[in-house]
Amino acid sequence: MNAALSYADEHFDTFVDQLEDLLSIPSVSTDSTYTDEVQRAAQWVAEHLRERGVHHAEVAETDGHPVVYAEHLTGNDKPTVLVYGHYDVQPPDPLDEWDTPPFDPTRRNDTLYARGACDDKGQMFMHLKALESYLESDGEPPVNLKFVIEGEEEIGSEHLAPFLRAHRDRLDADVVLISDTSMFSEDVPSITYGLRGLAYAEVTLQGPNRDLHSGVYGGAVENPANALAALIADLHDDEHRITIPGFYDNVRPLTDAERETYAELPFDEDAWADAVGVEAVRTEGGYSVLECLSARPTLDVNGIWGGYTGEGAKTVLPAKASAKISMRLVPEQTPTEIYDKLEAHLDAQVPDTMTMTFRRLHGGRPVLVDRTSPAMQAAQTAMGEVMGTEPTFVRHGGSIPIVADFKDLLGLDSVLMGFGLDTDAIHSPNEHFGLDRFRAGIQSIIRFHQHYAAA
Amino acid sequence: MNAALSYADEHFDTFVDQLEDLLSIPSVSTDSTYTDEVQRAAQWVAEHLRERGVHHAEVAETDGHPVVYAEHLTGNDKPTVLVYGHYDVQPPDPLDEWDTPPFDPTRRNDTLYARGACDDKGQMFMHLKALESYLESDGEPPVNLKFVIEGEEEIGSEHLAPFLRAHRDRLDADVVLISDTSMFSEDVPSITYGLRGLAYAEVTLQGPNRDLHSGVYGGAVENPANALAALIADLHDDEHRITIPGFYDNVRPLTDAERETYAELPFDEDAWADAVGVEAVRTEGGYSVLECLSARPTLDVNGIWGGYTGEGAKTVLPAKASAKISMRLVPEQTPTEIYDKLEAHLDAQVPDTMTMTFRRLHGGRPVLVDRTSPAMQAAQTAMGEVMGTEPTFVRHGGSIPIVADFKDLLGLDSVLMGFGLDTDAIHSPNEHFGLDRFRAGIQSIIRFHQHYAAA
Repeated sequence: MNAALSYADEHFDTFVDQLEDLLSIPSVSTDSTYTDEVQRAAQWVAEHLRERGVHHAEVAETDGHPVVYAEHLTGNDKPTVLVYGHYDVQPPDPLDEWDTPPFDPTRRNDTLYARGACDDKGQMFMHLKALESYLESDGEPPVNLKFVIEGEEEIGSEHLAPFLRAHRDRLDADVVLISDTSMFSEDVPSITYGLRGLAYAEVTLQGPNRDLHSGVYGGAVENPANALAALIADLHDDEHRITIPGFYDNVRPLTDAERETYAELPFDEDAWADAVGVEAVRTEGGYSVLECLSARPTLDVNGIWGGYTGEGAKTVLPAKASAKISMRLVPEQTPTEIYDKLEAHLDAQVPDTMTMTFRRLHGGRPVLVDRTSPAMQAAQTAMGEVMGTEPTFVRHGGSIPIVADFKDLLGLDSVLMGFGLDTDAIHSPNEHFGLDRFRAGIQSIIRFHQHYAAA
Repeated sequence: MNAALSYADEHFDTFVDQLEDLLSIPSVSTDSTYTDEVQRAAQWVAEHLRERGVHHAEVAETDGHPVVYAEHLTGNDKPTVLVYGHYDVQPPDPLDEWDTPPFDPTRRNDTLYARGACDDKGQMFMHLKALESYLESDGEPPVNLKFVIEGEEEIGSEHLAPFLRAHRDRLDADVVLISDTSMFSEDVPSITYGLRGLAYAEVTLQGPNRDLHSGVYGGAVENPANALAALIADLHDDEHRITIPGFYDNVRPLTDAERETYAELPFDEDAWADAVGVEAVRTEGGYSVLECLSARPTLDVNGIWGGYTGEGAKTVLPAKASAKISMRLVPEQTPTEIYDKLEAHLDAQVPDTMTMTFRRLHGGRPVLVDRTSPAMQAAQTAMGEVMGTEPTFVRHGGSIPIVADFKDLLGLDSVLMGFGLDTDAIHSPNEHFGLDRFRAGIQSIIRFHQHYAAA
């Protein structure tokens, strides 16, 4: 391991040069004008792995953008780590807000600026460099490695689950290792052990058979926009608890240990609120901001529309009104259960003057990984050695559907050892990745392999 | 009068031919590609009046489309009737739903089909024909007549109030006579004596300074769309009464006589609900459908929007959400008073996590005309003689801002003696006007002048 760490140190500048090469490919997955570039990025990654001496690397076609699959298996006695990452990136718009062009990677102040520098080309690339460091020094890494590097993460990973299903046997492993998340802060390294799930619905109330004149019909035709507002208002109580019957039935309570961890995290609530631009926060009664942001379920209107929304005053009584309503879930809630409960609750409230349609748009299960597992402990040790501070375990409020997929389809837990920061401007202009974190990531991965193999 | 009535009867076919000529001009006021046609229609009306021997008729330019102003004054001892109407029409879209072209007037089954046939070219033209019938038979009408025929009714009459203000002295009259409304039904002729007012606001709640990720921020950042829904839901109680403090303070109660009139009107609630496409009606507690549609104030969301409203599931916690909220007013409510009460009420409810902006978009005063006035009685008598049934007095749920303008700016009450039917498809494809009603309108106006002069 020491030889691998030394190799990584000595070749760090070359690693950055190589990453810049990959970052210069505009592999924007959502825009079909970039389809060839997405393909080129996939070929680049596979070729880069092959050039490093990886046993097998291929560009596996899907019904969408391809998956780069690679494996380097060196012993049945070694544990197998499946690395997941993605080579596609978000669109760079608005272009004129970038200080330097998004696909012309630029180093400033020990920081690399480019679309994908952090999300996820930079973080994914650390895994390739960790393997290379072993191959070029110790000969072989202490673990078997498989790589699934997809090209559709930024557009919903539609073809990843079919790929996992189709290659279930080949993807057999002991754990999934992913670097596509952020640390709590630069000073507080962290490993994500929980993610929220999602149940995202679209609700439409249909009243009259056409838009009506609000003067002629207002007063006896109930208004779907008013009624929808009433349904939505009724979903929270005064304590900002969600009122859907049974909504909290399957919520696993926070343990005392978890609440202690939350309480110990350095968190400046005022600064956080300032950054978001709000005068005050609003949390579920009895829980802290950090708990509510990641370990408690929520319900938010993501969109609402109905009637006349242009300039000026049009006196329409709308025929219908709609809202997108999503709930973030925590273990052991499931999307199906929560969809059922929301739909039944709304059904019971819909006025007899109108009809409701309820569509289930997108669901994902919440994730909670056992922090005491060998892989999680290995990650904590490895990262702690590199960062000088033992990382804390944190839960994250968002959803990473592929983590649930790895669990559901392959039975694998994921270790979310990410080196991003919330300030890295991923999905925004001037995305960047501190080179110190790029370095720390490579070293942490090298050490993870060693500790995990020894566990 | 009898000679005038006979003249009108004998020349009825010619009248229809002339009306068809006017209807063939596509004077669509909202579409600037038709500006020349709007101008042409104004010239046509003025010229038509001059050709009939009217003392004065001019096309008065405004900052928008012109007003046709005419006067025929024949005696200081006669009362003066100011006729209001409009020569502009709604756009004809969707064109492919017309059985015959909208600007190629067509007679079928004693009905005239064309855009503007009823609203308002056909009804306005009845007044020109009534005057002509006097001029060509009795020599002079028994009243002085002034005409204000505008070209912007379908786009909000923006330049009419300035015109009334600028010509206040010249427009001095005893009453305004308008044929631009519908009768209760073909079997129940009616005269409109009440109109609701309007206070139309736009409310925006601003929470965070940008759209946020609902996974990362949901749970501690209060959602403006949810909060707006709560504000709206809170505006009605379980009896569908409006909860704004003081909202009903200035509402003039329905008199027993009025409630009796409402109760006597033939009204098939089920058929009405069927036509609108609702399973049930929803009225303010203690009031009938007809009362709620015209004599009680209402509050409706006319439009609502916020967050992501496209296809699929975007997990955004919106920075802001907006609604257009309008209230129909009844005497003696005023727009200013009601705006003030709504704004104060919402202000008190806005969560401390966000800010509200409140814009007053469009206000209009309610109108209630004394049914016992000489003009109203003359109208009732005239229309009753022609229709064979004495017309009932009804209140209408909509607003006709110009009626309030005539009251506020000129001090004049309006007699709303209209001959339309709700089934005439005004503003829709295949607009039409029954020729029996066109004929009855002309005769009623001739009789009105006589009865009003004799009162």
